Amino acid sequence: MLLAVELNDLVGKCGQWLRGAGPESDIVISTRIRLARNLAEFPFVRRATSDERAQITKLVRKKVESVPQWADNLFLNVEGMTEVDRQFLVERQLMSLELADGTGDRAVAIEPEERFSIMVNEEDHLRIQVMCSGLDVQNAWQRIDEIDDLLQERLNFAFSEQLGYLTACPTNVGTGLRVSVMLHLPALVVTREIEKVFRSLQKINVAVRGLYGEGSQFMGDFYQISNQITLGRSEEDLVQTVSEVVPRVIEYERKARQFLLHESEQDLHDDVSRAYGILSTARKISSEETLHYLSKVRMGVNLGLINALDISTINKLFIHTQPAHLQKLCGHEMTTADRNIERAKYLQESLKTK
Amino acid sequence: MLLAVELNDLVGKCGQWLRGAGPESDIVISTRIRLARNLAEFPFVRRATSDERAQITKLVRKKVESVPQWADNLFLNVEGMTEVDRQFLVERQLMSLELADGTGDRAVAIEPEERFSIMVNEEDHLRIQVMCSGLDVQNAWQRIDEIDDLLQERLNFAFSEQLGYLTACPTNVGTGLRVSVMLHLPALVVTREIEKVFRSLQKINVAVRGLYGEGSQFMGDFYQISNQITLGRSEEDLVQTVSEVVPRVIEYERKARQFLLHESEQDLHDDVSRAYGILSTARKISSEETLHYLSKVRMGVNLGLINALDISTINKLFIHTQPAHLQKLCGHEMTTADRNIERAKYLQESLKTK
Repeated sequence: MLLAVELNDLVGKCGQWLRGAGPESDIVISTRIRLARNLAEFPFVRRATSDERAQITKLVRKKVESVPQWADNLFLNVEGMTEVDRQFLVERQLMSLELADGTGDRAVAIEPEERFSIMVNEEDHLRIQVMCSGLDVQNAWQRIDEIDDLLQERLNFAFSEQLGYLTACPTNVGTGLRVSVMLHLPALVVTREIEKVFRSLQKINVAVRGLYGEGSQFMGDFYQISNQITLGRSEEDLVQTVSEVVPRVIEYERKARQFLLHESEQDLHDDVSRAYGILSTARKISSEETLHYLSKVRMGVNLGLINALDISTINKLFIHTQPAHLQKLCGHEMTTADRNIERAKYLQESLKTK
Repeated sequence: MLLAVELNDLVGKCGQWLRGAGPESDIVISTRIRLARNLAEFPFVRRATSDERAQITKLVRKKVESVPQWADNLFLNVEGMTEVDRQFLVERQLMSLELADGTGDRAVAIEPEERFSIMVNEEDHLRIQVMCSGLDVQNAWQRIDEIDDLLQERLNFAFSEQLGYLTACPTNVGTGLRVSVMLHLPALVVTREIEKVFRSLQKINVAVRGLYGEGSQFMGDFYQISNQITLGRSEEDLVQTVSEVVPRVIEYERKARQFLLHESEQDLHDDVSRAYGILSTARKISSEETLHYLSKVRMGVNLGLINALDISTINKLFIHTQPAHLQKLCGHEMTTADRNIERAKYLQESLKTK
């Protein structure tokens, strides 16, 4: 029960990374860096026995809890969780779909302000991720480096002088580092330039994925841009690549927004204003429709076409209107039809008070 | 200039028949009765010379202006009007499309509260029409009978003992009387029962037409129900037929609304609420879209699903958001694109103040 209470503490809140306070927050939602690490004395997760997996979780928990500045961290056993709680943490971006949908002993440690989380027994023994608001690669890099150091002092990571950090999947070998920047690119979608941008990114080994990572759809015009390969390149080099490419994408999106403002301001204003109207008045609304209209409203607020809202409220609504969040907010499980009604109520109240 | 000022006096106002105060106003917008009359000493309009048409107008004007209780009536020369003014009077239901689009000397007399109008040199020399709010056939019949008497005292109407009143088109011969009831039937449209209702009406010689009469589309779910034939039947008989059939259509619509409320209240509530949201937030909106959403909102208000509005405001918006009304309200002519922007502004203000 203590565990459930701890997770529930997150429900009404909003992670630091969602507050829209970081650099370039009109377009960049968040910057995340993750490191893949494995313990030298255990086989990779996929080869580990259930006993070994339990030992890994136990060991990591003990070491994580021994870090003085992490005293307030939650350490959650994923296997014992309800389906809704697992989905809740995925929606909150605190753990991956893979960890949620997996089997066997696995866990996640969460910093209370959601500045970082550590997944245990995902594809690798440890997946450390740091989240920052806006475009803030250097800050994220510094923070994950500190976390890595604190863990290195306590755990024996599998490392090869030749290959670097060893990981379950060869694509992560080397630094095990992935930098992901989540961008909101509605104008490039409207102007149909988004595909062109993606093709040029792929040429320089930069991957583009949806809101919830690999295989997820491009919902709400959100795109995650991240480095493809980690082997044979230094951490600083990988951080540098993403740091350089993202500002160019931001500039394309800004230009597309200005183009829309100049070429078809009435259409744009009408579109975002109606989206706001629908979100404020719908009596039932699906998750997809909500993302679709919130995306328009977000762009409208950033372009000064809607004044009654701030970006942190919209960022929060993107997450809090997801299915598991709604169920946690209401305190009970709901059918899709009931969720659509609750979502409309929640949106109406959130948009009214502003 | 005096003429233009007189017409402009109508612009911001709203006819008595639009105020939603009559019987069954949740479904019946208005009851209109019109009589076709011709002057015995002139050929029918289509055969009259331009000189004769001018004489007809002059004579009718003189006689109409001689009625003491009609001292405040407007008497407007249609030929000298701008296109926008003509369209304005059509939208306001004070004259027919035929009179507006016709050529040659023609006129319309209008009672300031829009309780009746008299068209001169339309298909017949005189077309007298009386408008009442809601379903009020008896009242409309009494009033038009009085107007007819006042005119009979002053004009010599073509009448045959055998055929009754003579009219330009044989379908009007006899009484020259048409009773039209304008109904708002959104639920029968949603439940797709409207066609069935129409087929049964046609069997008993009751015609169904759109908002602006013959050939106009069924916009905003408005339907005019009227008698088909006038020859060989007494005025009282014709009035009786429509008086009997309309309550049955009203009952069908009420049942359909209750069905929707019981079977899919959430869908219905969502639909009308979003319609209200779109009308309140759009930055540009066409006339057709406005009718479409206003129709939903009107049903929503009548079913208690929307509380912030009254029926008279919605009835007024149906008319005031039409193209010529918008141009008259703004005081200048506008392109379609500019009208769509002005219409959105007008809707936003009208829906905000409530």
